[in-house]
Amino acid sequence: MRGNGRRPDPRVTGLTPEFVDEVRDALDLGQPERVRALVTPLGYADLADLLEPLDSRERAALIQAIHDTFDPTVLTELDDSVRLDVVEQFSTADLAAAIAKLESDDALYLIETLDDERRIAVMQAMPAAFRAILEQGLSYPESSAGRLMQRDVVAVPGFWTVGETIDFLRRSHGLPDDFYDLFVVDPAHRPAGTVPTSRVLRNPRETRIRDIMDDRGLSVPATMDQEQVADIFRRNDLVTIPVVDDAQRLIGAITVDDIVDVIDEEAEEDMLGLARTGERDIFASPLRTARRRQSWLLVTLVNTILASLVISRFEGAIAEIVALAILMPIVAAMGGNAGMQVVTVMVRALAARDLTGGGTWRVVGKEIVVGLMNGVVFATVMGTIATLWFGDWGLGAVLASAMMFNMVWAGLAGTVIPLTLNRFGVDPAVAAGPFLTTTTDVLGFFVFLGLASVFLL
Amino acid sequence: MRGNGRRPDPRVTGLTPEFVDEVRDALDLGQPERVRALVTPLGYADLADLLEPLDSRERAALIQAIHDTFDPTVLTELDDSVRLDVVEQFSTADLAAAIAKLESDDALYLIETLDDERRIAVMQAMPAAFRAILEQGLSYPESSAGRLMQRDVVAVPGFWTVGETIDFLRRSHGLPDDFYDLFVVDPAHRPAGTVPTSRVLRNPRETRIRDIMDDRGLSVPATMDQEQVADIFRRNDLVTIPVVDDAQRLIGAITVDDIVDVIDEEAEEDMLGLARTGERDIFASPLRTARRRQSWLLVTLVNTILASLVISRFEGAIAEIVALAILMPIVAAMGGNAGMQVVTVMVRALAARDLTGGGTWRVVGKEIVVGLMNGVVFATVMGTIATLWFGDWGLGAVLASAMMFNMVWAGLAGTVIPLTLNRFGVDPAVAAGPFLTTTTDVLGFFVFLGLASVFLL
Repeated sequence: MRGNGRRPDPRVTGLTPEFVDEVRDALDLGQPERVRALVTPLGYADLADLLEPLDSRERAALIQAIHDTFDPTVLTELDDSVRLDVVEQFSTADLAAAIAKLESDDALYLIETLDDERRIAVMQAMPAAFRAILEQGLSYPESSAGRLMQRDVVAVPGFWTVGETIDFLRRSHGLPDDFYDLFVVDPAHRPAGTVPTSRVLRNPRETRIRDIMDDRGLSVPATMDQEQVADIFRRNDLVTIPVVDDAQRLIGAITVDDIVDVIDEEAEEDMLGLARTGERDIFASPLRTARRRQSWLLVTLVNTILASLVISRFEGAIAEIVALAILMPIVAAMGGNAGMQVVTVMVRALAARDLTGGGTWRVVGKEIVVGLMNGVVFATVMGTIATLWFGDWGLGAVLASAMMFNMVWAGLAGTVIPLTLNRFGVDPAVAAGPFLTTTTDVLGFFVFLGLASVFLL
Repeated sequence: MRGNGRRPDPRVTGLTPEFVDEVRDALDLGQPERVRALVTPLGYADLADLLEPLDSRERAALIQAIHDTFDPTVLTELDDSVRLDVVEQFSTADLAAAIAKLESDDALYLIETLDDERRIAVMQAMPAAFRAILEQGLSYPESSAGRLMQRDVVAVPGFWTVGETIDFLRRSHGLPDDFYDLFVVDPAHRPAGTVPTSRVLRNPRETRIRDIMDDRGLSVPATMDQEQVADIFRRNDLVTIPVVDDAQRLIGAITVDDIVDVIDEEAEEDMLGLARTGERDIFASPLRTARRRQSWLLVTLVNTILASLVISRFEGAIAEIVALAILMPIVAAMGGNAGMQVVTVMVRALAARDLTGGGTWRVVGKEIVVGLMNGVVFATVMGTIATLWFGDWGLGAVLASAMMFNMVWAGLAGTVIPLTLNRFGVDPAVAAGPFLTTTTDVLGFFVFLGLASVFLL
């Protein structure tokens, strides 16, 4: 790594705790010049990382110190709660001017995160032309290609030569700063192909653009969901894709750096969904975090009350054989765990579209077989342990049978529940876990205590 | 979307089950020509998606039908078990020739997935120059920048003009097919900056390359872990980054499409880790899947046996008050669930390096407060329900106290366990869950049954 001397490069290593402490010291001692000296070399992602762990007062002091040179791109990198804090440090006019300096996709992203009142004020303070662009962007559905796209693209007709194209590019103003593909359009401004900039560089001036274009003709409508767009990037190893309106006309392009963010976001959603927590923002206030998690904890509470109701049906059996109470959590835990393994694999397969091409029933069958195999292994182990522990082979046999049943059930329910939810348009990452564990708890307790009542009493 | 007439475009929509069935029919009926007609329009990612749901016999027939036109890039997109199946359909010589046609990063990826014997045979069947490149690639650690990088890069001296650079590019052979950045190197071949190809296109022929380069001077050593490389791409919105050897000389470059795969992989690892399943391959055989999951199920079994041992200490209390057995799963489930919410948020924050810049202790404190808030809410609700259900306010109070305790504990353990594991270099995504639920189960049962023994007997 090329160092810059004294200090590890934060663009590579991230910020060190020591650096954050140093900035915090300077803020606390009221030394804005020292703050500026420390912060100026940081890139926008690092400045965002610095703002997040600070408290509100420190954030305000930091923004105060660097107000005039503040790069608004930082705002796009902040967690929601921190962004609100930072945005408050700017007047409407300053904020409007800062956002108008951004590329249209970043500006759109920022504008949509402001609360309604602030958004309207900021939009009104903007140059009319930029406001019109943002308003059109906001007209596309949330998380759609239209929201992600950059509107400034380079479009050329296919009959141009490489030479004409280079001359045009050298002459034109108002093109994006950097771009990686040129789009070839027909007379109706519909995309006909894509030309990587390197091909324009490498071919002789007299070559026709249409002869070096990639004519796979991929494009996406502005209304397509960003998750599907990300999938198209992955499947085709793209760097850019043109975005078209209803009439198939080129209106913008999406670049892969935005897709990296989408992929991160979607993976995070799946992961947090599986853990049943809607919270993605570690710096949000405790009250807000507590509230967001309550709905999922409530689901858990209802699940577990259902399980308790099942147990209460077998009060008599437990009073007679206390060992049942000791062993019953094992049946539920093993079924729940085996089931969540299956659910996770299914959620991932559905997200990666590994199951769109058929093979679904083979996977269901496979998971039942896996449940059977591991059911036999763990039921034998645990049945033996229980027999030795309580000196009662009947109890061991009942425990083993209930575990077998619950682990096979986990294979069936772990596949069928996510598939069914997905079929009905419900996100399986979020909903499959609670459904599954309710069934493995309720059935686990029911089968174990039920078999015990029949055979041991 | 530009359609291609009859059929939805699989590059955009993925394969339809109908299409897969059609191919399968043609394979079963032994109609290789129909198979070829169906499969030829597919891109490599689609062909990979088609191969995965087929069984071994169908895969062999499909490869047979398209053997001569098979694009080896398909192999890079397959799940491990399917790839082994497909690779077996090729002779060593054919496979060596196919791999030698790939870009060096893809070839390296494929070679390292072969078993030892096959790898040695295939390497020996390759042109010596290509073999040398692969051997050097294999000398870098697994999952390092050196394994990911493309070796063919465009490097130019900074004193060249745009015109000289374009002339050089038009003249040269053996450059990569498409590229998005040129690298500026000093006389010792060390990277000094990066020039997006679009800047070369847009500037007059007499402009010096060094005047239009991005001189942030970012580069990564070949030994850097891919996860850290991905993080640098994210933080700096890069499309390419140069890779350097120990002497800081430019030896290759990593492009963002490979980073998209790394990000997917890392997110998947975290997600599967949290679900305690090492399996990522839904098309692996049941026996293999069952085996891979056993280690995690064993961890669950040990956890839950520990919990059973705790319960067995309170046999007397349960025999006297069966309601304890009915209510005790609630304490464990709520603590475990609240704790896993915290663990997931922490795992994500650690993976995204949101916590490298300090603020750690604030987050621990916050989670304890969140645990306290939600503890109060749910303990009150469930304490009331238990009091009404069993007509015993003492039981309700004991249940509420145990729930409070366990949910505050979940906040503390849910933050401290991942942080501690991370400090000691253990992946918290995999290990934090089992640790956490063991504590919430064991402590949950212990506190609930213990309080009950003291106050209710």
